[in-house]
Amino acid sequence: MPDFDLVIRHGTVATASDVFAADIGIAGGQVLALGRNIGPGAREIDATGKLVLPGGIDSHTHIEEPRPGPTANADSFASGTASATVGGTTTVIGFARQARGGSMAAGVAEHRARAEQSRIDYGFHMILTDPRPEILTEELPALVEQGYRSFKIFLTYSGARITDGEALRVMAAARRLGALVCIHAEHHELIEFYTEALVAAGYTRPVHHAWAKPMVVEAECVHRVCRMAEALDVPIQVFHVSGEESAEEIERAQRRGLKVWGETCTQYLVTTAEDLDRPGLEGAKFLCSPAPRAKADQAALWEMIRRGVIGNVTSDHAPTRFGGPNGKTAFGEDAPFTKLPNGVPGLAARMPILFSEGVAKGRIDLPTFVAITATNAAKLFGLHPKKGTIAVGADADLAIWDPERRVTITRSLIQDANDHTPYEGFEVTGWPETTLVRGTPVVENGRVVGAPGFGQFLPRGPYDLIKPRGVFPGPFNPVDGVPV
Amino acid sequence: MPDFDLVIRHGTVATASDVFAADIGIAGGQVLALGRNIGPGAREIDATGKLVLPGGIDSHTHIEEPRPGPTANADSFASGTASATVGGTTTVIGFARQARGGSMAAGVAEHRARAEQSRIDYGFHMILTDPRPEILTEELPALVEQGYRSFKIFLTYSGARITDGEALRVMAAARRLGALVCIHAEHHELIEFYTEALVAAGYTRPVHHAWAKPMVVEAECVHRVCRMAEALDVPIQVFHVSGEESAEEIERAQRRGLKVWGETCTQYLVTTAEDLDRPGLEGAKFLCSPAPRAKADQAALWEMIRRGVIGNVTSDHAPTRFGGPNGKTAFGEDAPFTKLPNGVPGLAARMPILFSEGVAKGRIDLPTFVAITATNAAKLFGLHPKKGTIAVGADADLAIWDPERRVTITRSLIQDANDHTPYEGFEVTGWPETTLVRGTPVVENGRVVGAPGFGQFLPRGPYDLIKPRGVFPGPFNPVDGVPV
Amino acid sequence: MPDFDLVIRHGTVATASDVFAADIGIAGGQVLALGRNIGPGAREIDATGKLVLPGGIDSHTHIEEPRPGPTANADSFASGTASATVGGTTTVIGFARQARGGSMAAGVAEHRARAEQSRIDYGFHMILTDPRPEILTEELPALVEQGYRSFKIFLTYSGARITDGEALRVMAAARRLGALVCIHAEHHELIEFYTEALVAAGYTRPVHHAWAKPMVVEAECVHRVCRMAEALDVPIQVFHVSGEESAEEIERAQRRGLKVWGETCTQYLVTTAEDLDRPGLEGAKFLCSPAPRAKADQAALWEMIRRGVIGNVTSDHAPTRFGGPNGKTAFGEDAPFTKLPNGVPGLAARMPILFSEGVAKGRIDLPTFVAITATNAAKLFGLHPKKGTIAVGADADLAIWDPERRVTITRSLIQDANDHTPYEGFEVTGWPETTLVRGTPVVENGRVVGAPGFGQFLPRGPYDLIKPRGVFPGPFNPVDGVPV
Amino acid sequence: MPDFDLVIRHGTVATASDVFAADIGIAGGQVLALGRNIGPGAREIDATGKLVLPGGIDSHTHIEEPRPGPTANADSFASGTASATVGGTTTVIGFARQARGGSMAAGVAEHRARAEQSRIDYGFHMILTDPRPEILTEELPALVEQGYRSFKIFLTYSGARITDGEALRVMAAARRLGALVCIHAEHHELIEFYTEALVAAGYTRPVHHAWAKPMVVEAECVHRVCRMAEALDVPIQVFHVSGEESAEEIERAQRRGLKVWGETCTQYLVTTAEDLDRPGLEGAKFLCSPAPRAKADQAALWEMIRRGVIGNVTSDHAPTRFGGPNGKTAFGEDAPFTKLPNGVPGLAARMPILFSEGVAKGRIDLPTFVAITATNAAKLFGLHPKKGTIAVGADADLAIWDPERRVTITRSLIQDANDHTPYEGFEVTGWPETTLVRGTPVVENGRVVGAPGFGQFLPRGPYDLIKPRGVFPGPFNPVDGVPV
Repeated sequence: MPDFDLVIRHGTVATASDVFAADIGIAGGQVLALGRNIGPGAREIDATGKLVLPGGIDSHTHIEEPRPGPTANADSFASGTASATVGGTTTVIGFARQARGGSMAAGVAEHRARAEQSRIDYGFHMILTDPRPEILTEELPALVEQGYRSFKIFLTYSGARITDGEALRVMAAARRLGALVCIHAEHHELIEFYTEALVAAGYTRPVHHAWAKPMVVEAECVHRVCRMAEALDVPIQVFHVSGEESAEEIERAQRRGLKVWGETCTQYLVTTAEDLDRPGLEGAKFLCSPAPRAKADQAALWEMIRRGVIGNVTSDHAPTRFGGPNGKTAFGEDAPFTKLPNGVPGLAARMPILFSEGVAKGRIDLPTFVAITATNAAKLFGLHPKKGTIAVGADADLAIWDPERRVTITRSLIQDANDHTPYEGFEVTGWPETTLVRGTPVVENGRVVGAPGFGQFLPRGPYDLIKPRGVFPGPFNPVDGVPV
Repeated sequence: MPDFDLVIRHGTVATASDVFAADIGIAGGQVLALGRNIGPGAREIDATGKLVLPGGIDSHTHIEEPRPGPTANADSFASGTASATVGGTTTVIGFARQARGGSMAAGVAEHRARAEQSRIDYGFHMILTDPRPEILTEELPALVEQGYRSFKIFLTYSGARITDGEALRVMAAARRLGALVCIHAEHHELIEFYTEALVAAGYTRPVHHAWAKPMVVEAECVHRVCRMAEALDVPIQVFHVSGEESAEEIERAQRRGLKVWGETCTQYLVTTAEDLDRPGLEGAKFLCSPAPRAKADQAALWEMIRRGVIGNVTSDHAPTRFGGPNGKTAFGEDAPFTKLPNGVPGLAARMPILFSEGVAKGRIDLPTFVAITATNAAKLFGLHPKKGTIAVGADADLAIWDPERRVTITRSLIQDANDHTPYEGFEVTGWPETTLVRGTPVVENGRVVGAPGFGQFLPRGPYDLIKPRGVFPGPFNPVDGVPV
Repeated sequence: MPDFDLVIRHGTVATASDVFAADIGIAGGQVLALGRNIGPGAREIDATGKLVLPGGIDSHTHIEEPRPGPTANADSFASGTASATVGGTTTVIGFARQARGGSMAAGVAEHRARAEQSRIDYGFHMILTDPRPEILTEELPALVEQGYRSFKIFLTYSGARITDGEALRVMAAARRLGALVCIHAEHHELIEFYTEALVAAGYTRPVHHAWAKPMVVEAECVHRVCRMAEALDVPIQVFHVSGEESAEEIERAQRRGLKVWGETCTQYLVTTAEDLDRPGLEGAKFLCSPAPRAKADQAALWEMIRRGVIGNVTSDHAPTRFGGPNGKTAFGEDAPFTKLPNGVPGLAARMPILFSEGVAKGRIDLPTFVAITATNAAKLFGLHPKKGTIAVGADADLAIWDPERRVTITRSLIQDANDHTPYEGFEVTGWPETTLVRGTPVVENGRVVGAPGFGQFLPRGPYDLIKPRGVFPGPFNPVDGVPV
Repeated sequence: MPDFDLVIRHGTVATASDVFAADIGIAGGQVLALGRNIGPGAREIDATGKLVLPGGIDSHTHIEEPRPGPTANADSFASGTASATVGGTTTVIGFARQARGGSMAAGVAEHRARAEQSRIDYGFHMILTDPRPEILTEELPALVEQGYRSFKIFLTYSGARITDGEALRVMAAARRLGALVCIHAEHHELIEFYTEALVAAGYTRPVHHAWAKPMVVEAECVHRVCRMAEALDVPIQVFHVSGEESAEEIERAQRRGLKVWGETCTQYLVTTAEDLDRPGLEGAKFLCSPAPRAKADQAALWEMIRRGVIGNVTSDHAPTRFGGPNGKTAFGEDAPFTKLPNGVPGLAARMPILFSEGVAKGRIDLPTFVAITATNAAKLFGLHPKKGTIAVGADADLAIWDPERRVTITRSLIQDANDHTPYEGFEVTGWPETTLVRGTPVVENGRVVGAPGFGQFLPRGPYDLIKPRGVFPGPFNPVDGVPV
């Protein structure tokens, strides 16, 4: 009788700390043994010459998410998560959205239903668009208890944004409940001001999207939310830090001792505002918010990753179609940027691009790659050590990489349901050939074999962090209403 | 026939640059000569052993300003400006306030009428509480033309505060008109959050005012307005920078090349939050916004003054009574800090305290004292070189100081119409014995001799500054709506 | 037949990344399996409720090191490494010293002979006191090849210090050979200047040692060596960063993209200059260089550890006796600090103090503890993954900790050959009860059972780091003498 | 009888603080009156439409200075100071050099004799190349007393450089005597290291001079001397700060509260390392130390000037010939940069270039121009208010500028004795048409009319600065050997 359901033999295993040769024994969906010459498996995979890495966690993905306005979401959970596995990602955290005036619990329930077709395990951040007192005090405690342990708030986007005052109340609730607040931080009124001026002057091409929200718009707001987190002594993650100045605000907050984490996304490491200026509507393929920045910002972000200021790199996958009804081109060649749907798809491309641009090009080492694609997100979002690492007792969410393989990214390779990828033609070194979720292959030699519905909802635990500092202006804790 | 109406002989004259021995010849209210052994004056003052300094400009004063709520404004223009001259100040810039829904021009006209009893020259910042488009485009151009060349906006205080979006429109108007924007910068919702928590927990003594608006509240907002100024490339002055962290945000903005000026006030250099904790309601005498900080902040502010980060020190004179109806004590011993009127009087004490704590104690030199009490404000607010220095052609606004005289500040010395001073008992070295406005004595040996109504309205010119940088995200100027 | 020589069951295993429950199977001195319910071992240890952590690497230790002058080195390799194991440390890196005018190879050979009595594995940094060209070009290549892959240089201490010009040549050699340079960085002439003045004025007690080398002395030199490393594009580790200002210089270097690592030592986290002022000669027990700093520096160092600026915490174990001939007290009660031998013993106390002050008090998490006591040093000094982690194929260097046990540190507990410990009476939570080197117990329930001579020399590999940047002033590499 | 020897009428006068219209009455070489319609002068100059500015102080000039090695010093005091006056400069501070092993007093006496042919007033910094105890304690007190109140030290240049230990002793002497230390700060051994590598590889053209001393070489040493000044609590001026990184070190020192002043020179604001790469030996015309940097450094320096971090801009005039024996080309077309004499001439060009690039282009205002060319140097070097400003009692050292005049700088315009100017062809707006020293014209409409020998030695007073802080490690002042 075999010792294991599956043994992956002779591979080089990496965690966020170590790189070592080991066989991996898997049973019941979990890693049960790491060793040399371990007992036989019912099935065996020879990983000689390959890297065996933790399956990625993409903690910022928009799949089947109802967004206000006419946006063509190409992906279903079935197609989106298929694409994720192609790129070595085995867990996604998406968003359940509260409707204005509506219930957060209802939003969660709806979204949970949509996710049943996921091929990989999943969780949700809860987008609070209307944090009324009863939501904060009646709905959220139960939802957090059920494992929805992070809130997302927008400080820009009409229809989603909340006020600073509401944000403070969300932060205070998060502190009380042990939930993490994730923030889209851009100065709303400033974007409006710029946009109005640009539109009035006829500057409405895709590239003017970047003019309408330059770095100052983001840097302001990143600092603001850090100060709000400081005032309430609550951990936050700032979403999609896009360049140097914003990252510096994150670092300053960390230097003040705050529990502020910075996330960036694939696109900010490899695209720039110049891509938005490609001929015709080609530039629209790169249109997202924040806008892509300059080459120097890319270098700065890598440096920030290297020094740990930014510890999580996601796709911010937004499966907006390019063509077709509601696609980016639906408004015609002259469509003003204000009408173009925001967001770029990127679930599959994330890890190969990070591996290639990071590890293969010598910008980061392999443990850092593991950390920024899997482990740190697992810790931050309460999934560790079940997810995000290769360790005894962890789910056998794995990707087997050929570190030397050279691949040109194309739409067909990506295998999502979209009609384009912004990374078309991008050349990478290193590719995840086989992906497993809980020990079950979901990609084999590049072919998607995972089944819709195989994915499970992940009730998440509290963030795995050193505690907040408890520093308040006087000997009184204004969040919890008690003396400190 | 005498050469001059008045000659001040044998004094040591100081400007923001130089210190030298000279006689000063005055005629027609102006300095017409600086020299050795100049011709005779119809009147002569012997300033042997004395310093002759530019009369101070206090560019942040609230006199007879109608403020929302039951505030007992002790001073009239007659009494407030009397007190100013006692302390060597010869020009005040106050505030004309727009009523919500009302006209700015109307607010200016009203306030101008009230100021007719001023003993010294005066100008106004215009408080925009409701910057509707027609105010910005129809009223302001004419008002600026008449010499009201600075706008004040509040980002906190219900009843006065405007939104960030409105603030951007005010800033844009200021840029177009060549006006300077002055800002009270504290994070409004955060103050509300803290206050609500404190009140709910019964922390309502004067000292809890400081708990309700700790440094983080101000540091956040100072950064925010600097970023907004950066985005619109418009000069601003941040009012009452109260401590190290806020001053650092000012400095960071200056390092980014912005035209951001920092002002602090007397009280932030000599009082602390501990003063708010004095027994009974004594602490209320020190209650102002921002709140006084810590000893270390005082040292940091002096350092920032020394390095030029902060270049203007004002009184923020708010003639709130301590006793009597509507005074700070009107709500009884147990009055919560939320009901206590804000602000401290300080017109007379400003310059003697700065001279003593600054020059006499060796923290700054005499030219720096002149700069931060007179010259810099004159330049920033379009009064230079008519005001703010001792130079040929300048108004003969002068104060003759005995640099060695030791004085204990008391209410009676101050000669305003209030019932207290927060600086009661404060000992200073150096005192302005004689003060002249346009060559006419208004204080002689400490006795007020200036007449109500002697003061003149000062139409001000544009700020005397190196121009903005004109750096915008693209080759388009979103403020002026033209290509750059 | 058992599967393993030894199985450690039911423990909680931690690496620099993960914490998980696993049995550990050991054979041939290596970890061969991590798993659940793994096969039997010839011997088994029940670690229920315990932490199984990587044995510590103390990469800064002075044992049997011949130092100039009359220093009473209490410890032999047998006693020193016994004490190390008591505190959970299983690898030491010491120093082989070149005599002035002598050969580095000779110094290595001598020291290697002395180390044969070590109970645990060991390596050496090579102290270059006289880096003549032939040493750099003839001796060092062979020595590096043999696994002596790090150089130590002193920029202070007569008898050991080299000039900046020599240091540059050492750095260039290190770059060519792939060796790491470790630096004792204090401004020599400034210490001399201060010392001369203090002695002349009769300030010669132990506490004046701290006056003679205040933070400015170290901060200057830390910056200097960072700039030298920048100029030659060579990785360095700065030894014993003692407080905030020096750590800031390290961080600034890292922000410039340099490969600069900062080390601190136990004593800088728990002792201060005030300890040097204890009555009589008690203060001499805390005398080391750099000198202990202030409480605020301790907090700053923890913050720097948390943010990864400082990644390695060592003991700088210097087994100077307190009493006896050549002990610290040998010169009498009035011995001037200039005559007192430098350095404090600390091999055993290092890890328990870091665990207690760090993990138990919530300043750092368990993976960070593993990183700063073992993993990072292993990577930096070319021992990873053989040493410094718990992974398949790694040496079974392990310590089994009771995380709850409360212990008061005393001399007898320490089990070195010295007559005192500066940590006498220090209370800790958490203690390593059992220590294993290559699977062989060296401490069992606190009793030393390892044998002298059991330790092996560790030929080390190159540092496991992202490569230098290759940034030189022109398109020419002045270190290697070739175009870049 | 005329009231004045000379009256300059109808000009616009500027000081470091103010700009105003005034007539200037001069008698006995001093400004005796500033006024409107002042009494007649024996001579009158109509300055309608002109600026009347303080004559410049160039506090860093090498004229007739014996330097080691075969350097062709083109200028005599007669020719050099003629050229200075052409550019509006009326005071020079040069260098008296101590010979190694020799006496400082002897160096001063020699140099004083050479300077007798100066057309303008002058002082000297004393270059200490051999600060033996008897020099510091016996010679310097008397020399300082005689008005030689500043020391210059080199930390690089064989033949001139002193050690850090010697520098500390010089600094301590300066503190005791109230003298200012000026420092040439570059890391000597690093320059040697680079140079050796470059020469060995055949990189020996003028541009490689810049490769041999990149910014890191200077930034290191600037920080080092700031720390040394911090340790001894003594004011210093860092000479020729050439770019952003060094200026940042100056600013950091100022932020620590130190009395550290930064000087830059004309060439660092308008030339770059690319100029060193001009064809043939043309590049040698721009060869000086530190080397010119990049465009971005120029912008950074202007920003630092604007914020007051750098407050003094000099020429570092080094009248090295380009052709002829000992000229820069004397070693042939292939002369290695190591043989090329250092330094560029620039006495005349300094103020016109600063006026044009600064004031005319809107980078700085007129008072700042006055401050950085005259007033600040006067204060720093003990000449204020006799020199460096236009004030009653000040020497009538004046330059009358046509602010609109456009001039192309050429060798013939410069009127020194050299054979080239690095600024040949540079176009400026604004030119000093008339220059006066103590009321006597030395340039009239661009024609030199001053007489050799008219200049007087200037005994200087102590620096006009806020006192040092007196912060030492313990309650003991190690410089003065007394308790603090």
